[in-house]
Amino acid sequence: MERVVIKLTGKVFSPENVKTLTELARVITEFKRGRAKVAVVVGGGETARRYINMALEAGISLGWQDILGIGASRLNAMLFSAMLGDHAYYPVPTRIEDFIHAWNMNKIAVGGGLQPGQSSNAVAASLAELLNAELLVNATTVDGVYERDPRVEPNARILKELTIDDLKRVLMQSYTPGRYELIDPVALSIMERASLNVVFINAFKPYMLRSVLSGERTYGSWIKP
Amino acid sequence: MERVVIKLTGKVFSPENVKTLTELARVITEFKRGRAKVAVVVGGGETARRYINMALEAGISLGWQDILGIGASRLNAMLFSAMLGDHAYYPVPTRIEDFIHAWNMNKIAVGGGLQPGQSSNAVAASLAELLNAELLVNATTVDGVYERDPRVEPNARILKELTIDDLKRVLMQSYTPGRYELIDPVALSIMERASLNVVFINAFKPYMLRSVLSGERTYGSWIKP
Amino acid sequence: MERVVIKLTGKVFSPENVKTLTELARVITEFKRGRAKVAVVVGGGETARRYINMALEAGISLGWQDILGIGASRLNAMLFSAMLGDHAYYPVPTRIEDFIHAWNMNKIAVGGGLQPGQSSNAVAASLAELLNAELLVNATTVDGVYERDPRVEPNARILKELTIDDLKRVLMQSYTPGRYELIDPVALSIMERASLNVVFINAFKPYMLRSVLSGERTYGSWIKP
Amino acid sequence: MERVVIKLTGKVFSPENVKTLTELARVITEFKRGRAKVAVVVGGGETARRYINMALEAGISLGWQDILGIGASRLNAMLFSAMLGDHAYYPVPTRIEDFIHAWNMNKIAVGGGLQPGQSSNAVAASLAELLNAELLVNATTVDGVYERDPRVEPNARILKELTIDDLKRVLMQSYTPGRYELIDPVALSIMERASLNVVFINAFKPYMLRSVLSGERTYGSWIKP
Amino acid sequence: MERVVIKLTGKVFSPENVKTLTELARVITEFKRGRAKVAVVVGGGETARRYINMALEAGISLGWQDILGIGASRLNAMLFSAMLGDHAYYPVPTRIEDFIHAWNMNKIAVGGGLQPGQSSNAVAASLAELLNAELLVNATTVDGVYERDPRVEPNARILKELTIDDLKRVLMQSYTPGRYELIDPVALSIMERASLNVVFINAFKPYMLRSVLSGERTYGSWIKP
Amino acid sequence: MERVVIKLTGKVFSPENVKTLTELARVITEFKRGRAKVAVVVGGGETARRYINMALEAGISLGWQDILGIGASRLNAMLFSAMLGDHAYYPVPTRIEDFIHAWNMNKIAVGGGLQPGQSSNAVAASLAELLNAELLVNATTVDGVYERDPRVEPNARILKELTIDDLKRVLMQSYTPGRYELIDPVALSIMERASLNVVFINAFKPYMLRSVLSGERTYGSWIKP
Repeated sequence: MERVVIKLTGKVFSPENVKTLTELARVITEFKRGRAKVAVVVGGGETARRYINMALEAGISLGWQDILGIGASRLNAMLFSAMLGDHAYYPVPTRIEDFIHAWNMNKIAVGGGLQPGQSSNAVAASLAELLNAELLVNATTVDGVYERDPRVEPNARILKELTIDDLKRVLMQSYTPGRYELIDPVALSIMERASLNVVFINAFKPYMLRSVLSGERTYGSWIKP
Repeated sequence: MERVVIKLTGKVFSPENVKTLTELARVITEFKRGRAKVAVVVGGGETARRYINMALEAGISLGWQDILGIGASRLNAMLFSAMLGDHAYYPVPTRIEDFIHAWNMNKIAVGGGLQPGQSSNAVAASLAELLNAELLVNATTVDGVYERDPRVEPNARILKELTIDDLKRVLMQSYTPGRYELIDPVALSIMERASLNVVFINAFKPYMLRSVLSGERTYGSWIKP
Repeated sequence: MERVVIKLTGKVFSPENVKTLTELARVITEFKRGRAKVAVVVGGGETARRYINMALEAGISLGWQDILGIGASRLNAMLFSAMLGDHAYYPVPTRIEDFIHAWNMNKIAVGGGLQPGQSSNAVAASLAELLNAELLVNATTVDGVYERDPRVEPNARILKELTIDDLKRVLMQSYTPGRYELIDPVALSIMERASLNVVFINAFKPYMLRSVLSGERTYGSWIKP
Repeated sequence: MERVVIKLTGKVFSPENVKTLTELARVITEFKRGRAKVAVVVGGGETARRYINMALEAGISLGWQDILGIGASRLNAMLFSAMLGDHAYYPVPTRIEDFIHAWNMNKIAVGGGLQPGQSSNAVAASLAELLNAELLVNATTVDGVYERDPRVEPNARILKELTIDDLKRVLMQSYTPGRYELIDPVALSIMERASLNVVFINAFKPYMLRSVLSGERTYGSWIKP
Repeated sequence: MERVVIKLTGKVFSPENVKTLTELARVITEFKRGRAKVAVVVGGGETARRYINMALEAGISLGWQDILGIGASRLNAMLFSAMLGDHAYYPVPTRIEDFIHAWNMNKIAVGGGLQPGQSSNAVAASLAELLNAELLVNATTVDGVYERDPRVEPNARILKELTIDDLKRVLMQSYTPGRYELIDPVALSIMERASLNVVFINAFKPYMLRSVLSGERTYGSWIKP
Repeated sequence: MERVVIKLTGKVFSPENVKTLTELARVITEFKRGRAKVAVVVGGGETARRYINMALEAGISLGWQDILGIGASRLNAMLFSAMLGDHAYYPVPTRIEDFIHAWNMNKIAVGGGLQPGQSSNAVAASLAELLNAELLVNATTVDGVYERDPRVEPNARILKELTIDDLKRVLMQSYTPGRYELIDPVALSIMERASLNVVFINAFKPYMLRSVLSGERTYGSWIKP
């Protein structure tokens, strides 16, 4: 595998997870060394939450709250870029064109959100399409896609392999809406139109990322395009 | 009314409509003179179609086709900017930040699409939210929102006033999908979350734009937020 | 007074101070309305601390820690810009040239740090010099410059007026180094070479800012150039 | 040969020539693989014509018509960049500095015009000079430089080799001015001052480009510097 | 008169002419105050000469020598911008789009050259066309266009008024080529195609500029379009 | 040695030193070929002096004088970039981020000053810290750090090796302040906090640079971190 886009949940960017972050950076750097191409999109996490809440309290619109969330995701991207050292594309990309630029230049671009009303999952899916990626790795807070919401049904199993239609069905299932957000509709529709190879893994378990990048299918939930 | 975002269909950008375009530019310039604030988003129209088709034939991905469509919409934006003379913000905005910049600077920004997988309608709705616009004018190829597809049922009436929910119902109605595209789901959801005032008018009838900008409610279909 | 540069301590950018922030934004907006010119420099505060600590734990150099602190100060600047609405220069300035640009365009630029190894106080002083400001307002966490460290000697008085040399003497006094940092040597030397008018006030008391901007000398410590 | 600038006529950018375009892209990509350096300048073609005519009808100045023509040439450049895949420098260069940047970075920059009043031929010649190119390939609509206008005299022969002075003489010959425009005076003067190696070939015959890039002198008209 | 483009010879940018420069800046600032629009293009002068000579000695190509000359003209533009204070558009424009931007924003852009192989006279003429200027002031080292080279024939008279064709005839006259360079062919052709109003005055006599900007026709040589 | 930042005194950028400059460029290019990474910071020299004096005479502030000095140093950087040919990162970096970008892209960035109130020595030290350089070469007008001011005491010896504290002591010694400026306090403090390896050599003796880059410790004064 030589062309990979990785989405990292913003939740991993917090003081108690610095070791996880440095380990994720090491895995990606090692993968890159072997002439592979990588782009990384990170979420806003706790910092985004903090600024969105301040904006909300100040009566600032949802659109501007999105912009602050994007700003927070870029701060996370700066930190992760610093961890990648010379391999990183710097400064942090702020337009889709910057990601393409970095990819063609053979550097690892680490970016966050790009536009209000567009999730970082949608950015990652769009990039995977544009960059003709062989795999989109979606590293979240859980080990994969569960047949049922694992917080409600602790015995729910992870689906090792599923189609886009399976994924839609799982996402639309009966549990409380908004509680278990793996992926949004826009990201989903890009995944579908571009027939992307996607795997969902846990960002807090860097060995899963190493395994997936080495071509194994041991961990995570794999979407059959 | 002092804060307006206007979406112009790309279909009006063709050699046979130059008079319509210059008339639209005149209406907007006159409105602007009275200290109003305006931002304009234009579609890609025929030029977009042309380049997307070439890309398709060459086996280039949907994501890149979107990028070419965006490029075409920016060419339309350049032409319309030239028609606005000194009132235009130039060069053509390529990021949402540029639109905000121009608005705060009190110039008319004319831009096109911004990101693959995001319609120019979504850009316009997002801007209306960020800029705290009093009205989003959606100038399309028809006089407003019809209760039924006017191409199928010639007697269908225009709905003078409707709620977002009415609009959704109309859009989801039984006629052939994809044929009668007023607005996409992302644009719709921004309209909803930001409680935008929206009116649909016909871009090919510039007197409708003049009427709407002067505060009248004679033409078009008005969405009650 | 028509030309003012304001430095806001980053410490005011936290969830419990949103009301203070919106009040500061209101004071500045009102001042601006009267054709005055303003530029604002904000610090990184808690967010900077958070990212610098993560970088430190990850073994990232002091230079990159500065860059992350700058990134955090820019996130604060984004939030404050959103509070200023149409009056703000947007996007957030990242070079000294952007500040000059915004000033000449008559918009309020809100920025953070610019370069590793340079404090936001130094940025504010440099701006005040370049923009030929009549006053540099340094809004910190205390009500002014105390004759002695107020945390050590609770009865220490605020100096109403002092020369640059007085200020240097106070800063170099016998209390624990690093504990009471009003201003760094680089900022101090620019203040001196440019004979800047400077006042130190408390950012957490917005009425002080309003008073100072209205031309009164009721609050704060004033530096005689 | 390792350093080549290629000028492609804008006329090749139309729906009926997509196969020619993809073939030209393939030839350039293969050449690039062997560590060669390439920069490409494309004209505006039919799209430029379309927008220039609209501007003309709207009473917009010749200067702005040039700018629209430049915009159209950049849209062509975007399409051709997409065809080059990872080898392309992206986004499309808009300043001469971007071309130099791309060249030094070892990527293929595909750009269009740069300034009103300057032809894309002049851009290509200027680049060949700045980049110290071994060859400037001028791919037009005809097989080379004819001793007389081939549209007037069908038996006119192609000149295999000619000096700059020969070229000037041919261009100034008696046939109707403006009808047979191979090259403009500014481009010509740069070719002369920089003693450039130039070959004129037919863009619609990609095998000519392949032959020329492989070092053969079978096709086209060669200018002796 | 409300729309003026001014070309200042680079020769006025030298230590012995600082008073002339500040006087020119004062004249332009006063003119600007009355709601007029101005753009300024400056040449490279002695500094350009210095760097071009160094490049020449180092064996660097004419194209790069042009780029250094452009760099020098921008340094002159920086100095002149500083003299204009808040009225200046800053940073110095480096693309034609920046000049348009500044003009529409109502600020005075002071720029230098833009592209290798293009004179600053051509930049000024192109701007005058794009910005729809009422007058292009060409401030050189002499008082106007002489009927014959004043250095050869000291009694040569200044032509108060002349057509573009007269100007061409004068420029092509028999005196030594290259010695008396008022204007280059590209600038001339833009002046012609755009029917520009042009006046040639002496940059070293700021009262001439003041007179011309106040609408008088007392000094200089005026081109009838 | 594979990671080096070089500071070149601006004094070497003058017509009589073109041979020295081309020789310095050759030494750096050869070093770069062997996969090493290099960044270069140059001073403003005579050109800076010239423009600063003009600004001073025109009554322009010290801050703007700094900006003009920075502009001059960038002109020097353009000239030196042209000498490096394809190895140079172009255009000249104007932000610290551009230097990092170029470094990660494996090109030689040649830049000048970045901010008013910050010396080019401080820029070079900051870069050496950020880029994790193995050596910072400070090429000045003398052969190294003298135990006493060589202009006052001709027999003063060069210190082959010294600590940061030794360096501080030498700089603070009794001779006339301001006369013998090797390094400023900000640069010194970055050198100290980052424990940089630094060597002071003579820019006018390119063999010293060659020797130092080849890993020898024959010439110059070496700072023990």
